[in-house]
Amino acid sequence: MDPFRLTDDALLVLDQSALPREERWVEVRSAAKMAEAIAGLRVRGAPAIGIAGAIGIWLEAERIAESEGGRAARGSVSASRMKALEASADLLRAARPTAANLAWAVARAMGAGARGAAAADPRAWTAPIRAEALAIWEEDRGHSRAMARYGRQLFATERRFLTHCHTGGLATGGGGTALGVLLEIHRSGRPIQVWATETRPLLQGARLTAWELENEGVPVRLIVDSAAAYVMERRKVEAVVVGADRIARNGDLANKIGTLPLALAARDLGIPFVAVAPSTTIDPGCASGDEIPIEERSPEELLGYQGIPVAPSGLPAENPAFDVTPCRLVTAIVTERGIHRGPAFDLGGC
Amino acid sequence: MDPFRLTDDALLVLDQSALPREERWVEVRSAAKMAEAIAGLRVRGAPAIGIAGAIGIWLEAERIAESEGGRAARGSVSASRMKALEASADLLRAARPTAANLAWAVARAMGAGARGAAAADPRAWTAPIRAEALAIWEEDRGHSRAMARYGRQLFATERRFLTHCHTGGLATGGGGTALGVLLEIHRSGRPIQVWATETRPLLQGARLTAWELENEGVPVRLIVDSAAAYVMERRKVEAVVVGADRIARNGDLANKIGTLPLALAARDLGIPFVAVAPSTTIDPGCASGDEIPIEERSPEELLGYQGIPVAPSGLPAENPAFDVTPCRLVTAIVTERGIHRGPAFDLGGC
Repeated sequence: MDPFRLTDDALLVLDQSALPREERWVEVRSAAKMAEAIAGLRVRGAPAIGIAGAIGIWLEAERIAESEGGRAARGSVSASRMKALEASADLLRAARPTAANLAWAVARAMGAGARGAAAADPRAWTAPIRAEALAIWEEDRGHSRAMARYGRQLFATERRFLTHCHTGGLATGGGGTALGVLLEIHRSGRPIQVWATETRPLLQGARLTAWELENEGVPVRLIVDSAAAYVMERRKVEAVVVGADRIARNGDLANKIGTLPLALAARDLGIPFVAVAPSTTIDPGCASGDEIPIEERSPEELLGYQGIPVAPSGLPAENPAFDVTPCRLVTAIVTERGIHRGPAFDLGGC
Repeated sequence: MDPFRLTDDALLVLDQSALPREERWVEVRSAAKMAEAIAGLRVRGAPAIGIAGAIGIWLEAERIAESEGGRAARGSVSASRMKALEASADLLRAARPTAANLAWAVARAMGAGARGAAAADPRAWTAPIRAEALAIWEEDRGHSRAMARYGRQLFATERRFLTHCHTGGLATGGGGTALGVLLEIHRSGRPIQVWATETRPLLQGARLTAWELENEGVPVRLIVDSAAAYVMERRKVEAVVVGADRIARNGDLANKIGTLPLALAARDLGIPFVAVAPSTTIDPGCASGDEIPIEERSPEELLGYQGIPVAPSGLPAENPAFDVTPCRLVTAIVTERGIHRGPAFDLGGC
């Protein structure tokens, strides 16, 4: 299942915030609308929001080109196009500050825009941006396939896995990261059992992971996030496998809030804790996890669920969307380039 | 705030499953109704369900006495009374298998019943059972006061605490365990800041702890359970303080699911992890945590919230209500008898 459908002049985004209750597609034709879809978690998962960000740049370039009307390009056209586009790039990057892929993919699309910005024909400017965004998407599909293979190689015999949040096809350009590995093992014919954390506050584990695994015929059991340590011990889970939203050069990694306790429990039990993410999630600008910005989301996400209050209204709450797992707790990181073993990582060259 | 109101022939139980949305009192006049209130978490917290269990035995004795009518007691009256009462004791104990206090308090009430069971006057049989149940309640209030003092002594300077689930007055006969300690420190004039986990699946932290702390004027911030490790590190939490449902002789302790990850995070950060529970929570029959039965509750508690599905219906789920924290992770256990320091506990004499 893909998170997007592309048309000639729009991106249809599958609204993941409504799944699995409802399959609703949102039509996006501007960077502002894309930023809103990203901030609202209609599209989510670091690789997927990277692709969405790049396509957002292309859609905005089309709007800018259209607003130029039939006027012939003058000398200043390059600067004015890129100035307008840069504002949209800022908007997109700010939509979710933690995921490395978003800023990276926006930068790639902006690079394509800058290269062709002086073109007299607006189409000659926008077409390469679209092509660059589609290349990012296509490359990401390939990354998912490669990570699935490496992951299956890393987990040569394990059958009992625990995962967190959602890292399937919808979180990427198709295929998935951590969940892609588990599905690859399942499809290879090895029977597996997966425990999926529900992933508060927005329940991506319950709504997306458990649902996707059920649909794929993989035995899955849903648990509350805080039951993971107990279940890992009592049910003899053999490995924890998660995605990542940003990875520092030393292997420290930001991932969905609740990842760090899984790594602590895995270490205590002596079982592997493995992150699966494309190299586009590695931020060579971050030496360690201390430099990763952590998105704080609205307390409302905790205080109510679909309009039903689950806590007294107005209660002070903190809602960090990610935590940082230090590399000392990370057994391995799987990218499309191979298996990087910890705890001493040097990912600068990835 | 007390969880109960006693009348001449009934116990009014404050329905904690409806709080804070609604203050609803349930009238209980039989052991079966009491078992239902306990299993349904209308009354919850290990000390509180102990008191409820003992009172349930008394209420059932009244029913049995009433059913005897005016018939003069014959030789077999003792055996028949206790046989009827034993069935109710089984029902009550089975309502929640993990909490040590429930079986302990039921046994105490049954002891009082057995001692007076041959009395010709039914009142002479039931009155001592009632008195025993009230003694358990009154003793528990004293335990809360003593634990609060010892806890404040243990935490002589700390100001930043994290707690889990609900351990305030409603979880006991009045006063509270872990939350009682925090309230004692607050009332002593030391400014504190508390982070309260929401405590999935039933949100006792959001509905009861955060609400109670707000009402008491204690600064509190609600977080999802899985954010605890991150918040402990980034917000410089100085201690984790929790209750317990059953403590083995070696200090291994069962408490609300999600306690174990807090202990793992505390150890990783080098901050104290402290449990506060009356000695009635210690089970001298359990040498270690391996012997503590863990209650598994209905998956429905995860799959929906107040009638709204939060996961695809019918999804397989596991819902253990407790986990076991090994004594090696426990800095201290505070009972009404004092501060017991770990990690090597010998609680057999408590």
